[in-house]
Amino acid sequence: KLERVCRDCFAPAESALDSLKRLYARKIAPVEKLYHFASFYTPTLMDGDFDSKPMVLLLGQYSVGKTTFIRYLLEQDFPSARIGVEPTTDKFTAVMHGHEDRVIPGNALSVQKDKPFYGLNMFGTGFLNRFEASECSAPLLKEITLVDTPGVLSGEKQRINRNYDFPAVTSWFVEKCDLILLMFDANKLDVSDEFKSVLQTLRGHEDKVRVVLNKCDTITPQQLLRVYGALMWYLGKVITTPEVMRVYVGSFWDKPLVRSENRELFEKEEADLLRDLSELPRYSAVRKLNDVVRRARQARVHAHIIAHLKAQCSGMFGKQKMQRKLMDDMPNVFNKVRLEGKFAVGDFPPVKKFKEVLESYEFSKLPKMDQQLLDEMERVLSKDLGDIMKLMAPPKESGGEEDEE
Amino acid sequence: KLERVCRDCFAPAESALDSLKRLYARKIAPVEKLYHFASFYTPTLMDGDFDSKPMVLLLGQYSVGKTTFIRYLLEQDFPSARIGVEPTTDKFTAVMHGHEDRVIPGNALSVQKDKPFYGLNMFGTGFLNRFEASECSAPLLKEITLVDTPGVLSGEKQRINRNYDFPAVTSWFVEKCDLILLMFDANKLDVSDEFKSVLQTLRGHEDKVRVVLNKCDTITPQQLLRVYGALMWYLGKVITTPEVMRVYVGSFWDKPLVRSENRELFEKEEADLLRDLSELPRYSAVRKLNDVVRRARQARVHAHIIAHLKAQCSGMFGKQKMQRKLMDDMPNVFNKVRLEGKFAVGDFPPVKKFKEVLESYEFSKLPKMDQQLLDEMERVLSKDLGDIMKLMAPPKESGGEEDEE
Ligand SMILES: Nc1ncnc2c1ncn2[C@@H]1O[C@H](COP(=O)(O)OP(=O)(O)OP(=O)(O)O)[C@@H](O)[C@H]1O
Ligand SMILES: Nc1ncnc2c1ncn2[C@@H]1O[C@H](COP(=O)(O)OP(=O)(O)OP(=O)(O)O)[C@@H](O)[C@H]1O
Ligand SMILES: [Mg+2]
Ligand SMILES: [Mg+2]
Repeated sequence: KLERVCRDCFAPAESALDSLKRLYARKIAPVEKLYHFASFYTPTLMDGDFDSKPMVLLLGQYSVGKTTFIRYLLEQDFPSARIGVEPTTDKFTAVMHGHEDRVIPGNALSVQKDKPFYGLNMFGTGFLNRFEASECSAPLLKEITLVDTPGVLSGEKQRINRNYDFPAVTSWFVEKCDLILLMFDANKLDVSDEFKSVLQTLRGHEDKVRVVLNKCDTITPQQLLRVYGALMWYLGKVITTPEVMRVYVGSFWDKPLVRSENRELFEKEEADLLRDLSELPRYSAVRKLNDVVRRARQARVHAHIIAHLKAQCSGMFGKQKMQRKLMDDMPNVFNKVRLEGKFAVGDFPPVKKFKEVLESYEFSKLPKMDQQLLDEMERVLSKDLGDIMKLMAPPKESGGEEDEE
Repeated sequence: KLERVCRDCFAPAESALDSLKRLYARKIAPVEKLYHFASFYTPTLMDGDFDSKPMVLLLGQYSVGKTTFIRYLLEQDFPSARIGVEPTTDKFTAVMHGHEDRVIPGNALSVQKDKPFYGLNMFGTGFLNRFEASECSAPLLKEITLVDTPGVLSGEKQRINRNYDFPAVTSWFVEKCDLILLMFDANKLDVSDEFKSVLQTLRGHEDKVRVVLNKCDTITPQQLLRVYGALMWYLGKVITTPEVMRVYVGSFWDKPLVRSENRELFEKEEADLLRDLSELPRYSAVRKLNDVVRRARQARVHAHIIAHLKAQCSGMFGKQKMQRKLMDDMPNVFNKVRLEGKFAVGDFPPVKKFKEVLESYEFSKLPKMDQQLLDEMERVLSKDLGDIMKLMAPPKESGGEEDEE
């Protein structure tokens, strides 16, 4: 109990985020609920989704030094951490703040609505058995949560030992996280096929990705140049955005450097990486607001589509036939709704996925238009969310919202 | 006259290359001549094509330091060299060995059969006015020829001032050269559209390309890391081969370093680059042999195609009709010739280009099969060229020929 209370004290209590949470629960969630939004998109946001600290995801082949890196950032051990030359970490581990060291297993975690892992339920116990939270009192964890992952192995070996869809799970975390650290070992750059598919999951989230080239002190400066160049060459090919990805080079642990020619460079790189991490809490709030805005816009469009379908099927006869007709004509339905409401194309769901879910509904029993509810949400979109944004970002830094879009 | 004689003394007199030259002139050139090979492919090889020294082509945007780099390699000035912050070099300049400093203008150069520039005639005087040789007595020039080029400017400015097709000319040099140095300035990596089209001309010759990142001493090691990374990222995108291109970083002139943190690295890089250049004469001979082999294989196939067409049109009547039929059926003709002679697909010309040239011939007047001539060339291909290869590359390094293919 005591533990619980204390943890709450350390939860980020930014008033802007609290307003956002209240606004969502009172004005947006009801629309989502009425029109079954969660079945078509993702589960309704929980308190945990707002209160959670910025999350940093560590990805990389096995033994590149992910767990060691977390230990180094925390300046202490964390429960369940295992470090070794062989593949060691075998679970997704959320390293979080807690006043005592303890490990919370995945199944227990996934039912806690005050934690941001509720959505992981969809991957079943096959995954939840391989997921845990590791709590300890390292000060950094008051600011951010770090997610350690099992290293990616070479193809076959990997798939045999796993009871869950690794790329799909990774994709969930990629979506949810504020920063993704892609770690490589300067001594062996080889990239397995599975790691390539992990790189694919980053598509659309390139702005969140930073690369860490680790163990750079074990090779000569000239070798480092070659390895780093090969990494950039490779990344330039697989990452489709023209913006160059930031790569931090160095040796990220507490042991002294093996070769010290690049000491100054490594120190600067490390300072830059830490600055990058320290700016997360500020951007994280904006990112959450951004997610809510996107969600509200989608919910608005979704409500209009559903209400439209309902209206078409509310006559006395021929409901079945009408439903089939509408199903076949969905692109046109979308188009009509879009023109009527002057909505943006981007706020509409993919037709195929939408129809798949709709399959199980009887159109005549869908909820009809609730104008008051929608009007209220409209006001949230056109005014309230903008006000919260102002609280988050000082005026001189305006434009940040658009950058995040 | 004296000058001329002296220059001849310094010509590469490797006996293997001499044998190759003789073999080509006596056994391959006659086949080419009989079957009009030069009209369909490229001009018959001249002495200059065999005697010429390995050529190194310098490419890059303006003011990156190309001319300065050549001056630095030579450890002396060369006639017509101009160096400056504005676009300065306005000609293609072949920097070659000569006992006295002198400049030979392009038109004069292009008629000298002992120089490898005979083929440049096809670009007309518009280009030849912008081409010259600069001779001086720097010892390095006894081993290699360096080709300085005008820096690539940003689009419009460029095209207005030119009377020739820059990418086409570049392409000719790319084909002819043994090594291509692509130079960038660490202070400004921007790449113009025209430079992108120059990069396109490198396709298929990636193994000859080295990149030089110049003026690296003017920025901090951390900035250098970023610039170098961005360059690799960019090159990885535009160069389609998976093999990472070798980049030499440093400051390639005789002035002291502005920042010395990376002195040791720059020195090693420079040593590597010089080693790369010093190995050129050895590889150049192999490359020439390789070109002759490819040419002989194409000439063989070409002779069979021509003789086949002739045979089909040697009846008394209906020659015109038969010619039209064969023209329309060229892919089939190729196929027949290929199966009959067991030739490789790669030795055949592109159908379209072949037909374009053939347009102006009357098939019945084409030369017929000269079995003796072809048999002799066959022996060259199956034995003599292999013997020369053995002279060029010591046995332990065999396999080099295939690598070059
Ligand atoms: N900066 C470093 N320099 C040199 N060696 C390091 C460095 N960081 C970690 N190591 C070593 O690399 C090995 C792997 O470390 P670690 O277990 O942290 O990697 P990991 O990426 O978490 O691996 P896995 O994916 O198997 O969990 C260990 O032997 C560790 O001591
Ligand atoms: N290694 C170097 N470090 C710093 N400055 C350099 C270096 N090499 C050349 N420069 C300077 O850069 C400028 C351009 O040099 P240079 O004329 O050799 O370039 P270029 O590539 O030949 O240009 P252009 O394409 O116009 O002929 C000159 O002012 C020169 O002094
Ligand atoms: Mg680990
Ligand atoms: Mg120049």
